[in-house]
Amino acid sequence: MTDMSFLTTLITDSTAKIVLFVLDGLGGLPDPTSGLTELETANTPNMDNLARDGICGLLDTVGIGVTPGSGPGHLALFGYDPIRFEVGRGVFSALGVGMELGPEDVAARVNFCTIENGIITDRRAGRISTDENARLCAKIGKVIVEGVEIEIVPEKEHRAALVLHGTGLSDEVSDTDPQRIGEAPLECDATSVGGEEAERTARIVNQYISRVVDIISDEHPANMIVTRGFSKYPNLPKMTEIYSLKPAGIATYPMYKAAAKLVGMDLIETGPTLADEIAALKTVWNTYDFFFLHYKPTDSRGEDGDFSGKVKAIEEADAQIPALMGLRPDVLAITGDHSTPALLKMHSWHPSPLLFHSKWERRDSVEAFGETACVGGGLGRFRAVDLMALMLANAMKLEKFGA
Amino acid sequence: MTDMSFLTTLITDSTAKIVLFVLDGLGGLPDPTSGLTELETANTPNMDNLARDGICGLLDTVGIGVTPGSGPGHLALFGYDPIRFEVGRGVFSALGVGMELGPEDVAARVNFCTIENGIITDRRAGRISTDENARLCAKIGKVIVEGVEIEIVPEKEHRAALVLHGTGLSDEVSDTDPQRIGEAPLECDATSVGGEEAERTARIVNQYISRVVDIISDEHPANMIVTRGFSKYPNLPKMTEIYSLKPAGIATYPMYKAAAKLVGMDLIETGPTLADEIAALKTVWNTYDFFFLHYKPTDSRGEDGDFSGKVKAIEEADAQIPALMGLRPDVLAITGDHSTPALLKMHSWHPSPLLFHSKWERRDSVEAFGETACVGGGLGRFRAVDLMALMLANAMKLEKFGA
Repeated sequence: MTDMSFLTTLITDSTAKIVLFVLDGLGGLPDPTSGLTELETANTPNMDNLARDGICGLLDTVGIGVTPGSGPGHLALFGYDPIRFEVGRGVFSALGVGMELGPEDVAARVNFCTIENGIITDRRAGRISTDENARLCAKIGKVIVEGVEIEIVPEKEHRAALVLHGTGLSDEVSDTDPQRIGEAPLECDATSVGGEEAERTARIVNQYISRVVDIISDEHPANMIVTRGFSKYPNLPKMTEIYSLKPAGIATYPMYKAAAKLVGMDLIETGPTLADEIAALKTVWNTYDFFFLHYKPTDSRGEDGDFSGKVKAIEEADAQIPALMGLRPDVLAITGDHSTPALLKMHSWHPSPLLFHSKWERRDSVEAFGETACVGGGLGRFRAVDLMALMLANAMKLEKFGA
Repeated sequence: MTDMSFLTTLITDSTAKIVLFVLDGLGGLPDPTSGLTELETANTPNMDNLARDGICGLLDTVGIGVTPGSGPGHLALFGYDPIRFEVGRGVFSALGVGMELGPEDVAARVNFCTIENGIITDRRAGRISTDENARLCAKIGKVIVEGVEIEIVPEKEHRAALVLHGTGLSDEVSDTDPQRIGEAPLECDATSVGGEEAERTARIVNQYISRVVDIISDEHPANMIVTRGFSKYPNLPKMTEIYSLKPAGIATYPMYKAAAKLVGMDLIETGPTLADEIAALKTVWNTYDFFFLHYKPTDSRGEDGDFSGKVKAIEEADAQIPALMGLRPDVLAITGDHSTPALLKMHSWHPSPLLFHSKWERRDSVEAFGETACVGGGLGRFRAVDLMALMLANAMKLEKFGA
């Protein structure tokens, strides 16, 4: 992996236009009958043409065997090592459900759980439904402790996001989630480097949890919450500073808008469909030089376990490729931020297929875009965090290193 | 490479069973006539079936061009970066020949060498035979210096292992092996951080070598010893702590039992054959969730330069695959800890072929298990230290990283 600050020393001017088209959760697993993945099953004449004309490969988002969340997945594609630039779990949870996060607010990930005689007996409260979760969050409502307004918003199943809106708060506080059953939830404590603001924040969290217990202790199975990943909005270096790019982000879901904003992209207004997104991209084509285009349905259908729905979502994306190529991007990368096989109904560790198109790349023997074909692709298998360097190189944005 | 402590943060519960089947020194080089390696020559219908149904790749144990010893080779397969977790050469020498090593004992690697007028003229004493080595070690016998009992045990050819059994010893002492001819053996010295215990240990080592000289100075060509890699039994993090696994090790040679023990595996009693080992594995199948199964003959025949013997050893291993698969492991990895090409008669730097079988992996086009086929395998080429993450992922033992 090439260090980001090293890349920065090589940056030069270019007028080339780069498009990073993320089909969320693109990679899959083969249907046991056909032996073909969702992407391999889909009829994708436009991407296949690009694959024939371009060069393919496989991307490891974080590392071999590691299943990336959407946050780390996108940071990696933007060239930010997701382990080094770890954004708190709480922040991504909150941003992912569209909560506002002020610079002094503190966010956390919440799990509803089951407690009996003070001991956690199920860390996921039997994986309650998202509807049940929403009902519980509504029942808890907004709580104010010591002048700090605390908001809880449902994610999926037993997971929720919590934000403490206020001033003088610290994220240097410990998890209350012991992360195993048979133990009592922990008290929230200031960490050793926390200081007075952390002591106050921990006190507020503990009071909040007492109040929540009063409200849901007679519920079943979700009669308790545990919290982890207390974090504030992170101050990441911006793509303009690092790469001297003028980046635009086009996405329809809060999580991906949030990820784009974290690295300093301008968010472009768009309608809900991919056609809308490409139309939006078109309107700002002359204003920016880097375009992050995000497409959600591939991941959603994968998470639903809907193999044929994911196939259809891929085909719908493929149908928009001519509109995108009509803009004649100098560099185009099509990939996923992680895999979401319909067979697993969740994000997975499998590398993402990558289709790379630029007039300054070698060709390979890949004839159609698919996971198995990408194994033999000319780019091989590499870490997603290096994709940005490859895009910049093809945009002639990187000077020679050394004389 | 994903850091081990990072993986630990992702560990969750799973009931899946993982088997790591190490065919020691599996990888080879092609026979010049047939163009096929030992593995490619062998008739391995069972492994070929698994390769067709599974996914293949190539593993670099330490790094490209680096020939691993058995110790680092196994540490890497267990997910321990063998450069970071360097276990002293002395420790592996001693454990490799089955010597007991107490927590305060100090071990070293010994080379018999030839000395003339105080100068080393042959660092390997003409590679004396292992029998001659054994005779010399017996002649030296147990020596007691300042109450410390010092034991020497033959390894192969000119190499032996030395253990100082006692208390108040330190491994912060320097090598006496100058590692070149034309120089005198060095005095053993305390290192700069060694302190009094190291001073005493160095004094004991020097006295010991004087005594050995008295005993073997009239021998030829092995009339002197040099020592290096003084080290104590290392305190490695245990697999249970890191991966939350309950690991069992099944091996017949001291070195591999030692490697398994170092990372906290329970050693399972077994007879000498692979069939015995698999029978032993079967008896504890319900008690453990990670099984390290070690098979030695592939390496032994490679070291002998016995190409067809190694082919036969591979075929004998293949014949036991049905018994192993009868247990229905959720995750199975078959690979080597390094290559041992019969043509080289030694360990080599060539990557190890990897056969990976799990219902949660993609398929690839590999039709038979072999080095050349693995080049095109769906897993590509990666570092052995990352294999553990891939096994854990397939066992559903790793949570998603980030939201």
